Amino acid sequence: MHILIIGAAGMVGRKLTARLAKDGALGGKSISAFTLADVVEAPAPAGFGGKVTSLAVDISDAAVAAKLVSGRPDVIFHLAAIVSGEAEADFDKGYRINLDGTRHLLDAIRAEGAKAPYVPRVVNTSSIAVFGAPFPELIHDEFFSTPLTSYGTQKAIGELLLTDYSRKGFMDGISIRLPTICIRPGKPNAAASGFFSNILREPLVGQEAVLPVDDSVLHWHASPRSAVGFLMHAATMDLTKMGWRRAITMPGLAATVGEQIEALRRVAGEKAVKLIRRMPDETIIRIVSGWPRAFDASRALSLGFKAEATFDEIIKVHVEDELGGKLP
Amino acid sequence: MHILIIGAAGMVGRKLTARLAKDGALGGKSISAFTLADVVEAPAPAGFGGKVTSLAVDISDAAVAAKLVSGRPDVIFHLAAIVSGEAEADFDKGYRINLDGTRHLLDAIRAEGAKAPYVPRVVNTSSIAVFGAPFPELIHDEFFSTPLTSYGTQKAIGELLLTDYSRKGFMDGISIRLPTICIRPGKPNAAASGFFSNILREPLVGQEAVLPVDDSVLHWHASPRSAVGFLMHAATMDLTKMGWRRAITMPGLAATVGEQIEALRRVAGEKAVKLIRRMPDETIIRIVSGWPRAFDASRALSLGFKAEATFDEIIKVHVEDELGGKLP
Repeated sequence: MHILIIGAAGMVGRKLTARLAKDGALGGKSISAFTLADVVEAPAPAGFGGKVTSLAVDISDAAVAAKLVSGRPDVIFHLAAIVSGEAEADFDKGYRINLDGTRHLLDAIRAEGAKAPYVPRVVNTSSIAVFGAPFPELIHDEFFSTPLTSYGTQKAIGELLLTDYSRKGFMDGISIRLPTICIRPGKPNAAASGFFSNILREPLVGQEAVLPVDDSVLHWHASPRSAVGFLMHAATMDLTKMGWRRAITMPGLAATVGEQIEALRRVAGEKAVKLIRRMPDETIIRIVSGWPRAFDASRALSLGFKAEATFDEIIKVHVEDELGGKLP
Repeated sequence: MHILIIGAAGMVGRKLTARLAKDGALGGKSISAFTLADVVEAPAPAGFGGKVTSLAVDISDAAVAAKLVSGRPDVIFHLAAIVSGEAEADFDKGYRINLDGTRHLLDAIRAEGAKAPYVPRVVNTSSIAVFGAPFPELIHDEFFSTPLTSYGTQKAIGELLLTDYSRKGFMDGISIRLPTICIRPGKPNAAASGFFSNILREPLVGQEAVLPVDDSVLHWHASPRSAVGFLMHAATMDLTKMGWRRAITMPGLAATVGEQIEALRRVAGEKAVKLIRRMPDETIIRIVSGWPRAFDASRALSLGFKAEATFDEIIKVHVEDELGGKLP
């Protein structure tokens, strides 16, 4: 089985590649080759015996999409995107990568299928940014997409395209809307959502972290490990169960910042909690107030997608996967 | 005021042009010029003293969009589309006209605005085809778009684009989802929905018509006159009331075929009803069973959009507007 991962050098892409390489198989089928694509060359996964082709490419170039698909990969993970803030700041770039890039990929698959039958599984990462306030208390799967960002608009369009191209038989596609990934490994970053991870990741290793919002802020979370699990399940499940409703919100954990902090206290003690500095930031407070808070993910759960049930678990996943299983 | 109508040669486009020309004004502002665009040259409206430029163009050509917008029209009606059946049969043509054509228009407006401030009102016609079965009994305005046709997909994408370009300040746009237009003037056509009009229009002038579905079939209707009214209201209303939820289902009348026939009986008598021949057509029955039936259009009504309340009215509009006010 040949797997193409577009956006392979990103955080989720690297974790997905590593997990697939470690398993050596997906859905019971042995993996013989990876094609890894991103704006930079993604590192070859450790301990994989098959063929790895790593390409630094611009996916807004239609010729690139054709090249990526020419090897007729069995499963295509499309993770590449210009993120929300950048797509909002650079309108053209956001549309070029997030909309045109996705469409080029779909058209390249269709063109490949026109040469000889070819219907790959395509797993497209979408986002809860397809939803825009005001929201019901729980956002259910039949709630409409009224994005309040260009990024959310581009993701909503990608969902529509993938479903239509699947319905027409050009591919077998699914779009999964990822929760906010928590705890993101790495360094604190400037993303408005960064603090959800910062206030846990930094104190776990004895570093201070800034909390810019109130403890009552409710948000929708899943671990990086769950995100990889969503992608793998989406790549192997029977999609006919979804009918032509091929875009779906992934399960997650609705938790307040206060609940996150209580979980931190249980896992790492009072000394960790004391490293959180409360510094209200009006800009971040305003941005976060427009974000979805909680979802009814019963459809995804019934289709076999699984996420964490407590924030203690989310922290423990980080300790296991990023800190070698123990606190310093 | 300068008005651009794209799709001006179609049934709704011609009626809209004629009405605007007759009024000589829109929203209290005098109309000085029309630009009429379509694949064929639209006829100049009768009795209009201002400037009329009629162009036969291909709107999937980006240069055409730039040309149409270069005159900086104050109001742009975008009515042009490849219809459902053709977009389903010719995938490339549907995407080229319905998606690329719309995007070129929006990008041309944005480019014009980058030269000097320019924020036209854009009224985009969408369709209830953005919804796909299974449906709730009444489809409300927060129900999700899961189109089951490429046409519906292209319309849903157009809605998302128009909202995002409006949110970014490039235009002041609204997408209105028209009900099935009944009674369509002209000859019976091959469209699967044609019978809704045929079974009224033909018997009104003493001709037979074929009814391919059961009397119990429920559907969502508005007259051509109402459609023109929706467009004019959308062109002049205060859109800030809509927030960034700029796509909206127009009001209409939910009626069964049986109710249509009873209205025909009241307006034109038993001899008209006797001209309807029942010839069940399994293909049409199947297609129609997947269509939306009835909507909760309270949002549109609260924003001032108006449609017919009875099918008798819909028939009377046809008699007034197409048959000179009396039955033959």
